[in-house]
Amino acid sequence: MPVKPSRGLADVVAASTALSDIDGQAGRLFYRGYDINEIAGNATFEEIAYLLQRGAPPGRADLDGYLGEMAAAREPGNLVAGSLPEVAARQEPMEALRTLVSLASADDPDSGSNEPGANLRKAARLTAQQPVLVAAYESARRGGPAPDPDPALGLAANFLLTVTGTMPSPAQAQFFDTCLVLHADHTMNASTFAARVCAATLSDMHSAVVAALGTLRGPLHGGANEQVMRGLEAVRREAEAAGADPVAAAGARAGERLRAGEKIMGFGHRVYKAEDPRARFLRQMSRQLGSASGDDTYYRMSRRMEEVVLAEKGLYPNVDFYAATVYHYLGLPTDLFTPVFSASRIAGWTAHVIEQHADNRLIRPDSEYIGERGLTWVPLDAR
Amino acid sequence: MPVKPSRGLADVVAASTALSDIDGQAGRLFYRGYDINEIAGNATFEEIAYLLQRGAPPGRADLDGYLGEMAAAREPGNLVAGSLPEVAARQEPMEALRTLVSLASADDPDSGSNEPGANLRKAARLTAQQPVLVAAYESARRGGPAPDPDPALGLAANFLLTVTGTMPSPAQAQFFDTCLVLHADHTMNASTFAARVCAATLSDMHSAVVAALGTLRGPLHGGANEQVMRGLEAVRREAEAAGADPVAAAGARAGERLRAGEKIMGFGHRVYKAEDPRARFLRQMSRQLGSASGDDTYYRMSRRMEEVVLAEKGLYPNVDFYAATVYHYLGLPTDLFTPVFSASRIAGWTAHVIEQHADNRLIRPDSEYIGERGLTWVPLDAR
Repeated sequence: MPVKPSRGLADVVAASTALSDIDGQAGRLFYRGYDINEIAGNATFEEIAYLLQRGAPPGRADLDGYLGEMAAAREPGNLVAGSLPEVAARQEPMEALRTLVSLASADDPDSGSNEPGANLRKAARLTAQQPVLVAAYESARRGGPAPDPDPALGLAANFLLTVTGTMPSPAQAQFFDTCLVLHADHTMNASTFAARVCAATLSDMHSAVVAALGTLRGPLHGGANEQVMRGLEAVRREAEAAGADPVAAAGARAGERLRAGEKIMGFGHRVYKAEDPRARFLRQMSRQLGSASGDDTYYRMSRRMEEVVLAEKGLYPNVDFYAATVYHYLGLPTDLFTPVFSASRIAGWTAHVIEQHADNRLIRPDSEYIGERGLTWVPLDAR
Repeated sequence: MPVKPSRGLADVVAASTALSDIDGQAGRLFYRGYDINEIAGNATFEEIAYLLQRGAPPGRADLDGYLGEMAAAREPGNLVAGSLPEVAARQEPMEALRTLVSLASADDPDSGSNEPGANLRKAARLTAQQPVLVAAYESARRGGPAPDPDPALGLAANFLLTVTGTMPSPAQAQFFDTCLVLHADHTMNASTFAARVCAATLSDMHSAVVAALGTLRGPLHGGANEQVMRGLEAVRREAEAAGADPVAAAGARAGERLRAGEKIMGFGHRVYKAEDPRARFLRQMSRQLGSASGDDTYYRMSRRMEEVVLAEKGLYPNVDFYAATVYHYLGLPTDLFTPVFSASRIAGWTAHVIEQHADNRLIRPDSEYIGERGLTWVPLDAR
């Protein structure tokens, strides 16, 4: 007998996972049993990618091996490199990443296999390549050469260096590394679910990541951090043009929108009923980076909006809200916020593909028919 | 309270649709309320694509307008055309189609919009382009020029002409048109579901089709028709090498596999408990095409396998089983069976994106955590 759940599969268990767990009532997030509050700031993104993909925190030798696999895979293959200038010139960032990862399978030596070892190697390579693709896209559209990564730096620092063209401070690199850790996995979000639906036909990891990238492209999922920033920029611009205080304007605008029944990007979450633990870290980083930048206006605007939305609606900021200003203070272009997020979430996507393939069942739900019935087909010439 | 359904969301209603409906007990399939038994043979694929995407069967003037839109979109854009030789040389067929459709969004004038009009236009264009991409891929890897389509022919005849390089007979064109009609939509199959999960973040139609193509690539979904054919070829080759009857060998092999507890590709379906009505049409076409070809061995092998599987397991052939020999008799290369299927199913995928966007809710299910709990994070140097 078909089960008819609430729309959008809210609260329907679609898969089992040992990767991440959310306690929505308490506002807690765990990666493989480790509380995000213990991990954030105490682990690099590479350690977390290893944890998710390979099952346990790496020892030093494990990590060195993993970093070696990543380093060897960093250079884009021929097909990607050859297409990059045209793709960067003609496609928007997430559109281009969808294309570039689809091209990249041609240069992956394990492309044809879903075996456990092949999946582990592909996961490491895809995780290493994603920041390189984002930086290469940014360089290609600016028309300049891509800055060389520094082999002495980790993924986060090199990512900032190669996207922005400026060597990050140790504090900036550390904060960005924490951002990547915070975004690495989050149970059955829409892009991860798309990756699992794809992988569950026993399709390959590149196809699943391409599906996830296309899904993350939608403004109800991945576009939120970018829209938060564009909203802040618009309010600030208007306020300053009118000689008004942007912080007061941000609070007033949030109140107006709520009273008009409009949604405010960056607030509320289908799973968290308490504060999202990632938002707490990101708020703190936004404050410190704003202060260090000498202009913490966007941070203070965000804070005021948060107060208004909490007071009027009881809604907490979600992971996208303070990620916007953190990414901004780190010098990342606003239209690359979602691509940057994807370079973290790819650790989770690939781990979910590994997990799906390890104990697979086709994901093939039912649908409810709501159209007309019993119509008679009339041939074209008699219509 | 989370609902915990059976694995793979079997029997869980994931979306409402007015596009297609299956009566699994009776073995009936409907497109927008019209029984497939009335449609197949009495409508062209273009009429059915129009029906699915635009809501009702077209009148003559409607259809002419739709065919005009399709004809204007047929030529691949610059980005696709420029990348095609390298992509065809380096990627497998479904891998290449995933890439080519991802590239194609750059040349679609409505790429940036999910508005209803834009979605209708994109659906017509994507439906027109998919057979062109399949034929262009085939020509590029053969190294010859792509045969020109004949403007006097419909989509099915031109598809056969441009992929095989041979003008089809009217009967072949008519049968192939019926194949495209039979495969155009099928409720919440895995690739269609992936397209809707993607579109439900308000991502765009190209992203959703790319996700669907990647999902269709998996052998549990789209690869089945190809595997059916490869299985028939292998059994025939072995039997003929041993001087045995391939028909008897096919039946014997099917029996052995069933007794060994192995699955046989092309049999059984999660939804149909009676015979799949599409299989009935395809069996009939396989018989007629086999007979016309002068060598109906593959048809007779299939028939024998069907008898054995029905007798021993009570399972009916699904849509993939006789599609394999029909495509084979039509001269289509075996490794293009799934790409050819995609050129039909794209009518449904795009119609589902239109429907999802018209009444959207994010598809974000829950997951069940099955991993360890309460672990303490130990920093790398203390591990």
